[in-house]
Amino acid sequence: MAKATAKGGARSKSAHKPLGNPADLTACEAAAAIARRDLTSEELVTACIARIDQLEPEVKAWAFLGRDHALDQARAADAWAREGKGLGLLHGVPVGIKDVIDTADMPTEANSALFKDYRPRQDAGCVAALRAAGAVIMGKTVTTELASSTPGATRNPRNLAHTPGGSSSGSAAAVACGMVPLALGTQTAGSVIRPASFCGVYAMKPTFGLVSRRGVLLQSHTLDTIGLYARCIEDLALLADAAAVHDSQDPVSISAARPRLSAIAASDPPLPPVFAFIRTPAWEQTSPVLREAYTELIAELGGRVEEVDMPTLAQATECQRIVQSAENAAYYGLFRERKPELVSDGLTERLKSGARIAAQDYIRAVNMRDMLYAAVEDLLTHYSAILAPSSLGPAPKGLSNTGDPVMNGLWTYLGTPTVNVPLLEADGLPIGVQLIGARRDDGRLLRNARWLARHLAGEV
Amino acid sequence: MAKATAKGGARSKSAHKPLGNPADLTACEAAAAIARRDLTSEELVTACIARIDQLEPEVKAWAFLGRDHALDQARAADAWAREGKGLGLLHGVPVGIKDVIDTADMPTEANSALFKDYRPRQDAGCVAALRAAGAVIMGKTVTTELASSTPGATRNPRNLAHTPGGSSSGSAAAVACGMVPLALGTQTAGSVIRPASFCGVYAMKPTFGLVSRRGVLLQSHTLDTIGLYARCIEDLALLADAAAVHDSQDPVSISAARPRLSAIAASDPPLPPVFAFIRTPAWEQTSPVLREAYTELIAELGGRVEEVDMPTLAQATECQRIVQSAENAAYYGLFRERKPELVSDGLTERLKSGARIAAQDYIRAVNMRDMLYAAVEDLLTHYSAILAPSSLGPAPKGLSNTGDPVMNGLWTYLGTPTVNVPLLEADGLPIGVQLIGARRDDGRLLRNARWLARHLAGEV
Repeated sequence: MAKATAKGGARSKSAHKPLGNPADLTACEAAAAIARRDLTSEELVTACIARIDQLEPEVKAWAFLGRDHALDQARAADAWAREGKGLGLLHGVPVGIKDVIDTADMPTEANSALFKDYRPRQDAGCVAALRAAGAVIMGKTVTTELASSTPGATRNPRNLAHTPGGSSSGSAAAVACGMVPLALGTQTAGSVIRPASFCGVYAMKPTFGLVSRRGVLLQSHTLDTIGLYARCIEDLALLADAAAVHDSQDPVSISAARPRLSAIAASDPPLPPVFAFIRTPAWEQTSPVLREAYTELIAELGGRVEEVDMPTLAQATECQRIVQSAENAAYYGLFRERKPELVSDGLTERLKSGARIAAQDYIRAVNMRDMLYAAVEDLLTHYSAILAPSSLGPAPKGLSNTGDPVMNGLWTYLGTPTVNVPLLEADGLPIGVQLIGARRDDGRLLRNARWLARHLAGEV
Repeated sequence: MAKATAKGGARSKSAHKPLGNPADLTACEAAAAIARRDLTSEELVTACIARIDQLEPEVKAWAFLGRDHALDQARAADAWAREGKGLGLLHGVPVGIKDVIDTADMPTEANSALFKDYRPRQDAGCVAALRAAGAVIMGKTVTTELASSTPGATRNPRNLAHTPGGSSSGSAAAVACGMVPLALGTQTAGSVIRPASFCGVYAMKPTFGLVSRRGVLLQSHTLDTIGLYARCIEDLALLADAAAVHDSQDPVSISAARPRLSAIAASDPPLPPVFAFIRTPAWEQTSPVLREAYTELIAELGGRVEEVDMPTLAQATECQRIVQSAENAAYYGLFRERKPELVSDGLTERLKSGARIAAQDYIRAVNMRDMLYAAVEDLLTHYSAILAPSSLGPAPKGLSNTGDPVMNGLWTYLGTPTVNVPLLEADGLPIGVQLIGARRDDGRLLRNARWLARHLAGEV
């Protein structure tokens, strides 16, 4: 019923085989082909547009797509390359941007009437970083209303009758069906990792503070994190290297030295990793097919995994809920006070509930974070990474809700980097494996995620 | 009825006149005399103990005083000096420590049964810094219950029938009547500047983050600030130089370079200062004698002062109240939940009121801070410092309450450095002038405070 399959975790980089459809290349392959002039950005973007034109009527991943504008960016990238100028990490590679992230040249509407026709004056910090790396900003991907729980129109490309997850619905779906090799999302509870699990793509929520949040819709200053989508680990590392620049205008932006993640991710672990499998507090809510898939996965990993109990994680789950609800009410509450008719009933209820949280409970929940993280950090001195489900099961049927983020919120709260590795399948739908690493050790986490994918594919 | 008088703002440093009673020396004079071997720390501490023995029965400034332990520290300082070793800024100079600040060699009881006989394992960061500068830690000074509003036993040395103010009651009173030249207090609303105004001493609340708060009773992580008491500006600068060291264990500790405040404070302003007089939102609550005294002061300052209106400060006052109440409830609420019988009725009521604050209001109040500060910083590019009352009037009669911090809370919230200059008097009681400077510009503030005191004394 459930099977462990490795997909694309470690594509070989044989540089000179025929390229095939450019839309099927990984970002690393595409960037390398563009750099050696075997491919133009225009060809790549044209192929992606063709893929979008083919699938978008059913998948509905895009909130805004300016075909001509994308092609203009691609041609400019090609002109730059022809002149022999130095190329950035993502030169000519298209990236989809979740529609809560500001773009100076496209609308940013956050799937809310509050932001209808809103055109930001400036790029968000993370978009500016991607442009500096040479990326083509392809368009804006569908989000749930204000990155909260009311779904957008996007459908799961693996099975159109199922939700793609949310709130980064369009980014996950677009990467999953090859419309773009890379996309950005955001996560406050489980908005990056859950859609990745449901759509069967690689995703990463980097360490809190690694990628700038300046110019991104503010839902919770303590939790909001930019997330990354790709179709292999190497591409996640490449995108992270391009996106992670220090930004003095984001107060939590990490100003320490940033090792090149691509190099660490591509290296072999000094010893074969041992993973700590944690069921996490919501295990009882997981679906039977997920439990079955995990039983098989754990069996297959043998001595490379040990089950660990960490009861304090229940508190992390609860603290995340308190912090998100309270901060969300503080920020979105102003929308509701000014334009109540433009806020959906579902979100209105959520904000009302958040408004009832007492300041003292909120302050204590924020203050628990480093204490609860200390136990995780301690565990990660003994294990290579924590392994836990990315979602409660495969994507639920229907489009009326985007699923439950309970397997993710605790890790968002703790600020750890997490990766979704699309390794499992049940009932024809993907189920992700979530790997969790220590804060600021994103490179080691990617390296271990790559090892896991290759190991299950029989490559190591 | 009210008169402007400068007291000790600029004592001349003629080094070789007879010393008189060592307890009457400023800290600068005493440290210099000890350094040149004209005075021993033992003589100084003995004189201070004699002053304490004389006045303590009436003033009640001390929660703990170990005479032998203080003399032991003094003799050790003298032995060190005799051996010709290098001396710290405060070598051999006694300092009183508010009893909410941890001391490894003395109890720290915070005037609460909750902390009866509590002996911390480590010195607070600020105490450790003073010891590193050679200071003698004289003893612990009386605070209100948990540095909140229920008064301690201290009386105002200028008139024993009046409150000394709070919560740093003992530190203000001890310095005012010559028991010690220097003392530390803490301020969350107005607990340093108000007692200084009532007792007629110099005091400083440095920029938020300048002095470490590690090991200090936590009432409000957003507001709690270590304050300094002395009998002249030069001594405030000396104490600030000794106390202000970076502490990586206090998350708000400023890690930037720290110019030597003593040198800046002792220098002349490049141009004669111009002060911005702001009545602040609580002006209507001030006493008639205070208004009269300020009218005279403003007249005397002539072209050196301009009245400025800043209506946004009402919001700062309100935000401070919300933040203090909410954080206080979060931290002290745990005491109340565990040992309700050990918390006074007054504090219990305050905590209950704080527990009702909504998280969203708290979050918005915290977030307003930098926005409201921007207007103050802008004003301080045009004026040398802001001038405002340090308290609503002279010390109220009676010991049942310590007065209202409403003239101070807004500046604590904004994180600006403030100084109390004891320049005015009404009905035989002191009234302070509060000067406010830009964050991290503590040196310029002290220089302007010294200029003001000297100007009113006819010296400049």
